[in-house]
Amino acid sequence: MTDKTSNQMWGGRFAAGPDAIMEAINASIGFDQRMAAQDIAGSRAHAAMLAKAGIITDSDAEAIREGLLTVLSEIDSGSFNFSTALEDIHMNVEARLKEIIGEPAGRLHTGRSRNDQVATDFKLWVRDQLDATDGALVALIKALLAQAEQGADWVMPGFTHLQTAQPVTWGHHMMAYVEMFGRDLSRIRDARKRMNESPLGAAALAGTSFPIDRDMTAEALGFDRPAANSLDAVADRDFALEFLGAASICAMHLSRLSEELVIWSSAQFRFVTLSDRFSTGSSIMPQKKNPDAAELIRAKVGRIFGANTGLMMVMKGLPLTYSKDMQEDKEQVFDAADNLMLALAAMEGMVKDMTGNRESLAAAAGSGFSTATDLADWCVRALNMPFRDAHHVTGSLVAMAESRGCDLPDLSLEDMQSVHCDITDDVFSVLTVENSVASRTSYGGTAPSQVRSQIARWKDILA
Amino acid sequence: MTDKTSNQMWGGRFAAGPDAIMEAINASIGFDQRMAAQDIAGSRAHAAMLAKAGIITDSDAEAIREGLLTVLSEIDSGSFNFSTALEDIHMNVEARLKEIIGEPAGRLHTGRSRNDQVATDFKLWVRDQLDATDGALVALIKALLAQAEQGADWVMPGFTHLQTAQPVTWGHHMMAYVEMFGRDLSRIRDARKRMNESPLGAAALAGTSFPIDRDMTAEALGFDRPAANSLDAVADRDFALEFLGAASICAMHLSRLSEELVIWSSAQFRFVTLSDRFSTGSSIMPQKKNPDAAELIRAKVGRIFGANTGLMMVMKGLPLTYSKDMQEDKEQVFDAADNLMLALAAMEGMVKDMTGNRESLAAAAGSGFSTATDLADWCVRALNMPFRDAHHVTGSLVAMAESRGCDLPDLSLEDMQSVHCDITDDVFSVLTVENSVASRTSYGGTAPSQVRSQIARWKDILA
Amino acid sequence: MTDKTSNQMWGGRFAAGPDAIMEAINASIGFDQRMAAQDIAGSRAHAAMLAKAGIITDSDAEAIREGLLTVLSEIDSGSFNFSTALEDIHMNVEARLKEIIGEPAGRLHTGRSRNDQVATDFKLWVRDQLDATDGALVALIKALLAQAEQGADWVMPGFTHLQTAQPVTWGHHMMAYVEMFGRDLSRIRDARKRMNESPLGAAALAGTSFPIDRDMTAEALGFDRPAANSLDAVADRDFALEFLGAASICAMHLSRLSEELVIWSSAQFRFVTLSDRFSTGSSIMPQKKNPDAAELIRAKVGRIFGANTGLMMVMKGLPLTYSKDMQEDKEQVFDAADNLMLALAAMEGMVKDMTGNRESLAAAAGSGFSTATDLADWCVRALNMPFRDAHHVTGSLVAMAESRGCDLPDLSLEDMQSVHCDITDDVFSVLTVENSVASRTSYGGTAPSQVRSQIARWKDILA
Amino acid sequence: MTDKTSNQMWGGRFAAGPDAIMEAINASIGFDQRMAAQDIAGSRAHAAMLAKAGIITDSDAEAIREGLLTVLSEIDSGSFNFSTALEDIHMNVEARLKEIIGEPAGRLHTGRSRNDQVATDFKLWVRDQLDATDGALVALIKALLAQAEQGADWVMPGFTHLQTAQPVTWGHHMMAYVEMFGRDLSRIRDARKRMNESPLGAAALAGTSFPIDRDMTAEALGFDRPAANSLDAVADRDFALEFLGAASICAMHLSRLSEELVIWSSAQFRFVTLSDRFSTGSSIMPQKKNPDAAELIRAKVGRIFGANTGLMMVMKGLPLTYSKDMQEDKEQVFDAADNLMLALAAMEGMVKDMTGNRESLAAAAGSGFSTATDLADWCVRALNMPFRDAHHVTGSLVAMAESRGCDLPDLSLEDMQSVHCDITDDVFSVLTVENSVASRTSYGGTAPSQVRSQIARWKDILA
Repeated sequence: MTDKTSNQMWGGRFAAGPDAIMEAINASIGFDQRMAAQDIAGSRAHAAMLAKAGIITDSDAEAIREGLLTVLSEIDSGSFNFSTALEDIHMNVEARLKEIIGEPAGRLHTGRSRNDQVATDFKLWVRDQLDATDGALVALIKALLAQAEQGADWVMPGFTHLQTAQPVTWGHHMMAYVEMFGRDLSRIRDARKRMNESPLGAAALAGTSFPIDRDMTAEALGFDRPAANSLDAVADRDFALEFLGAASICAMHLSRLSEELVIWSSAQFRFVTLSDRFSTGSSIMPQKKNPDAAELIRAKVGRIFGANTGLMMVMKGLPLTYSKDMQEDKEQVFDAADNLMLALAAMEGMVKDMTGNRESLAAAAGSGFSTATDLADWCVRALNMPFRDAHHVTGSLVAMAESRGCDLPDLSLEDMQSVHCDITDDVFSVLTVENSVASRTSYGGTAPSQVRSQIARWKDILA
Repeated sequence: MTDKTSNQMWGGRFAAGPDAIMEAINASIGFDQRMAAQDIAGSRAHAAMLAKAGIITDSDAEAIREGLLTVLSEIDSGSFNFSTALEDIHMNVEARLKEIIGEPAGRLHTGRSRNDQVATDFKLWVRDQLDATDGALVALIKALLAQAEQGADWVMPGFTHLQTAQPVTWGHHMMAYVEMFGRDLSRIRDARKRMNESPLGAAALAGTSFPIDRDMTAEALGFDRPAANSLDAVADRDFALEFLGAASICAMHLSRLSEELVIWSSAQFRFVTLSDRFSTGSSIMPQKKNPDAAELIRAKVGRIFGANTGLMMVMKGLPLTYSKDMQEDKEQVFDAADNLMLALAAMEGMVKDMTGNRESLAAAAGSGFSTATDLADWCVRALNMPFRDAHHVTGSLVAMAESRGCDLPDLSLEDMQSVHCDITDDVFSVLTVENSVASRTSYGGTAPSQVRSQIARWKDILA
Repeated sequence: MTDKTSNQMWGGRFAAGPDAIMEAINASIGFDQRMAAQDIAGSRAHAAMLAKAGIITDSDAEAIREGLLTVLSEIDSGSFNFSTALEDIHMNVEARLKEIIGEPAGRLHTGRSRNDQVATDFKLWVRDQLDATDGALVALIKALLAQAEQGADWVMPGFTHLQTAQPVTWGHHMMAYVEMFGRDLSRIRDARKRMNESPLGAAALAGTSFPIDRDMTAEALGFDRPAANSLDAVADRDFALEFLGAASICAMHLSRLSEELVIWSSAQFRFVTLSDRFSTGSSIMPQKKNPDAAELIRAKVGRIFGANTGLMMVMKGLPLTYSKDMQEDKEQVFDAADNLMLALAAMEGMVKDMTGNRESLAAAAGSGFSTATDLADWCVRALNMPFRDAHHVTGSLVAMAESRGCDLPDLSLEDMQSVHCDITDDVFSVLTVENSVASRTSYGGTAPSQVRSQIARWKDILA
Repeated sequence: MTDKTSNQMWGGRFAAGPDAIMEAINASIGFDQRMAAQDIAGSRAHAAMLAKAGIITDSDAEAIREGLLTVLSEIDSGSFNFSTALEDIHMNVEARLKEIIGEPAGRLHTGRSRNDQVATDFKLWVRDQLDATDGALVALIKALLAQAEQGADWVMPGFTHLQTAQPVTWGHHMMAYVEMFGRDLSRIRDARKRMNESPLGAAALAGTSFPIDRDMTAEALGFDRPAANSLDAVADRDFALEFLGAASICAMHLSRLSEELVIWSSAQFRFVTLSDRFSTGSSIMPQKKNPDAAELIRAKVGRIFGANTGLMMVMKGLPLTYSKDMQEDKEQVFDAADNLMLALAAMEGMVKDMTGNRESLAAAAGSGFSTATDLADWCVRALNMPFRDAHHVTGSLVAMAESRGCDLPDLSLEDMQSVHCDITDDVFSVLTVENSVASRTSYGGTAPSQVRSQIARWKDILA
């Protein structure tokens, strides 16, 4: 970042120049230059509208719009000299525009203010990010669908409290995350709709007496409508908070999947093998294959929700309208957005590359009396026992098997009948893992048929 | 809370009883009894479905459904004895049902589990709360609309950085909060739609082999559809987090309005007089009228976002499906919901009762060169100056007025022309506060005509 | 809670009574009655000082001090009628005192105010809690020391990334938590010292013109000194925030240990068996033994840090001195303190009761080439290789063992020499798990001798 | 950042290279290069110890130590090429060392690991930051002392609820912040003492079999002692969390002072004039002087506590020892530390430069019946009324004055006696603002004499 001039726009009034500390705490160009494209798009739309409304001439508007494209190309090519003395992206762009096109540059700011300009730029940036997140979520869901399809009938333990509860299918487990990321997608889309109102033309805070056409600029920038209250338009940061909130829940989902991948990669579980791409070795233990990417993704929820906390605290108790506190909005959002995108991309890659270890999964699924519920349900169905009684019968049989060091299917019919005399040979049909999962055909259940039908439903949704 | 029995459902397997610490940390009946009505509604729907599907008899279902109504009336009347030994609301209700109707009670739990039961109960509770919040937001918006209508053309200072920037109208300021709480309403409604899927029938985690009809129970409980993945259905708490996120943003809006009311109530501002109902005296300063309600509301965002932080941290990194950690969801949500409702109701009351001090507002609106922007805009319009040049001319005139201890309208035409010779007498028409606000007719601007049209729009929306 | 009177102290000035909403949001007696003992202790100290300083008579002071004991005994016995109309514990106590002793009660509040009174009460409450936490931490550390002593030489895997890294000892692992909880203890004690300044006598905010003796009340209440600035004394809540901060870090430590206990209790790890006291069964899976207590403890950090977030947000941006926002301090701190105590007690119980499964630990310690580092270190020591070269040699040997499906000690000397010809038979001495841990005698290392010396050090500290 | 090589240390084992996403999420060199000086200091201490212990030769140690200085000078001068492929600062430094000195570089890593190395580097960085914060706090306290000294007897309103409560002195108000920042200083110093234990030599997690001397490296690096448990030493991030906690409370104090400066700078208050250095103008309102620095400082608590939230969430539930999640510690801490330093420096500058407006302060101090408490206290003292009765008499007199539109001293003795016949002429002596503040000589009270004695106490402390 090179300072080229200290021509501060508001400098005239002040005898003393702000010193280094003030410049360091006050200037935003170090980070808000990321909104250069949005700033220029907003200014181009504004200039076109000013001309259409007769506020500036067509030739001035044309000069401004062309000049702004030149500025953008300078920024894109890296040849633009950003100046801290000019404080922010808005003044950097306008100052350079003036160097390029001269006097007409001074007419661009008619009927607007930095307050609505920064709100517009930042909204456009967040909106772009919502769209990017949308795409990343769809890609991740597709990777999960592919895993689900491959292992729709692979059996594995279903856990509660990290204890084996009942057998489920790999596909079913993958589809649980599809539901989670599907809700994230839905939240992102709702947020986009809600925030898609243009602040441009709210001016400093009160609107303007120039006959501007806010619908025209809104439309040009892809907004659904202009924001309906100029005070609110410049004082609002809900769109950033709602993005951070949705991003935090999404990152929490990623942390749950990551936790599972870390546990599943352990020598004790061996449920999954991560690809070399997304794991690393150790400086001192050459044989280790560490799930670094999963751990890093697991941690991202901290940083993203930390940004949510930060901005919520900034906004707490701020009187209307714009206060400089609100300049603290951008770095938090930029960092959260970057990290969410990185985490989604890394998770997509990791899911695509990972290999479920079918044998380990199946072995674990069959241990731990995992079909006890099936036995209890059989008693209800076949013997018409109340559920609570069936539960006690099952408990006694599990205790018997445990004491003998065997599993439920290993008990003899006589053993079974010693606990309840009405039990018949038919009971053994429900005690295998495969039959257990195949039987759970209630809507949303773990039966492969249900899993496949959910995969089909999601493919339709994403088609 | 009276313990009536230590008949713990899972006690059979354990030699040693859980001691007092475990009971204290493990039992949830102290708080989850708030979900009694939801629990009983869920069980009644489940029983009806079990009968319809032929899983239990009609007469058992009828006994269960009637018995549950008896239990509900006992709870409503305060005669129910909650037992900590029975741990939670689900077991308390079921145990009492068994006392009332005997054996059929044991058939109620067929094809479901505590995992889907608690998810259903809690979702119903949160859904009720979303509806209550919806109503409270509408009431608050109406109170703000009434204030806006009364003072649609009252002038007051518009602030940035708590410095007078431009004159605005009281109505316009009130309507800024209508926009904020309107977005809160929209968020609440989106959240309700997204969460309205029934977990019931997901059973422990895998679904069930009983031929249950999840659509029937979903419909009976007002859900739009059954949740599509049984693992996700019992492991999901997004609905609680999304409620807390929306509640936090809403509470942040309340904190901003509260901050303004506190500042406006100060002896230095005197912009508003709060009613005696919503202020208090001091134990040592009898003449003081403290804005206690506003301060208490301002603080609520801490508690509500604290709950959001708490639950987000609880869910971080939890493997699927149900872990006992998730029992920490309810108290946080209950407390946040109670406090949000209280804050909304208190703010509605305070807004209804408060009196804008029209004279103080007007006096403040006219000071501090608040129409400087109007002067600059006039130069652009009338003299065709570039905005940036008009800004410098205005700056010089403000400096001149400041040095003379007068305001802009007090300068003579000669004074004005000494800075820029083309200025004409016409300039004085834009320098009054009333003309300033009346001129800002851009969409969403502060002109009374704009404010009244926004009030009308909102009345239509809420009609 | 029964309302006995609506005699509000500041009611006189207000025409309209505060309505139900205001009472609900404003009254604190629902929760601040927990500070009754502290309130009465503070008032008794104040009365004694007033008499000593000649501000009230000795007989009035005696009546007040005796009367307050009567009030305390009524509260302790449950016969006290708390009144919401009297708002808070201070007015409830004072009003009852007046009923009991009449006119002298009105002299108690001389030279103080509710502002310094509530600060004093709350500080005393938090100080009591710091002491209770101190005791609970010491008890937990002792439980960990007992586990460490028992298994000082039990081998188990040391993990990084949940991957086996090197063998360590059970005792060493337990002692890692002793260090963590030891730091918590140190933080708690520092916090206690820093906060131990008496606000009493700061009065409303400015001090008082009565010749009070703040040193005398400070000493009577166990404070080290009076707070040095009366504005700060009533506006400060650092002591609550510092408690919440220390509690949060402690709860985070508890969450780490809990996570390990949950993972170690899984069927795949079987490193530890929790007692029946601190685990539960399942409603549908009778054979399961769920680590509920560990999960509930793991979750507590959310709630406790949520309280920290809440109070930090409340205090953000509050102008001096007392604002009613600060009334939101207590419930957060009470809840966090209760939950921290519960979590510490449950963890102490769980640690005391749990059984390390020595065989499973040892088996896991020996797998996964866990002594690879020992091999590399041997190469450095015996063959004078640079560490980085030794690392590569070891990597090749691990790869060889892995491809043969054996472990490092199973390779022959020829195999070893085929990778590096200077390797001798001596290498096998470092490849056993027992020798590995025994060799790590650097200060703080995992060698049983080191572990035992650290146990001894901690016993001295706690003696 | 230029990639010069893809020679990843652990690359050998993996067939496929990590792709761009993995590199982006995994590499830390982008931020951990800030610890270069600490990394090199740690390595130099380690090398010296290895030689002293006979583990490497003196000449190797000398080559390493000299080579590291060369690396440091390259980094300081900006000529060092950081490589993302080499992942982190540790490998970047070691790889460059090898280029410079060849084979001995490979001996440096003997008896340590990246795990203890990164813990050591980060601790040293945080310790440096604690020291820098210490200095910044002392400077800020001195600026506040200078303001307090200048205005030790300037009267101003003391506020509760932003309502005038009692007159206080400017010096007293400044000293309230001295107490707050003094506690911050104390917290920072406690944190420094607690964290000052050296992780170096903990190696990967288990300690080492090399005869290292951890006391020697600890001493060389200024640590008080080596950390006592190697597992904890590499798994601990308490020192970072405690820094963030102390920084958050400090930032909260800054937010309170900033809030006051913003309110005091408003046209309605005019209590203070900020210097041009620390305020800015507006793009559209040339006459405005906005308290931007105060607003930006007010916002910093969000960002800093956001970092605290983030890291707390990262550490929640992590099993021992090192997990890659912990790499998320640094950016949060760096950002929080930078912003705290900036905020402290800006506040110091703002406090130094600001001018209290003595006349406005005095005028406000005398309005609003601010000496009502003095009147009540006079009744207690002179008439021996119980405090509660004196309070009611005062309330009646305030109501009388209010209804007449005058202040308390403007009432006649007859007016006074109409409320209570025993009131004498002497009462008027306590009703002036100057006498009010002068009378509050209780320890820590607002009397100028007390303020001056506290200033003297603090000068002694900082001397």
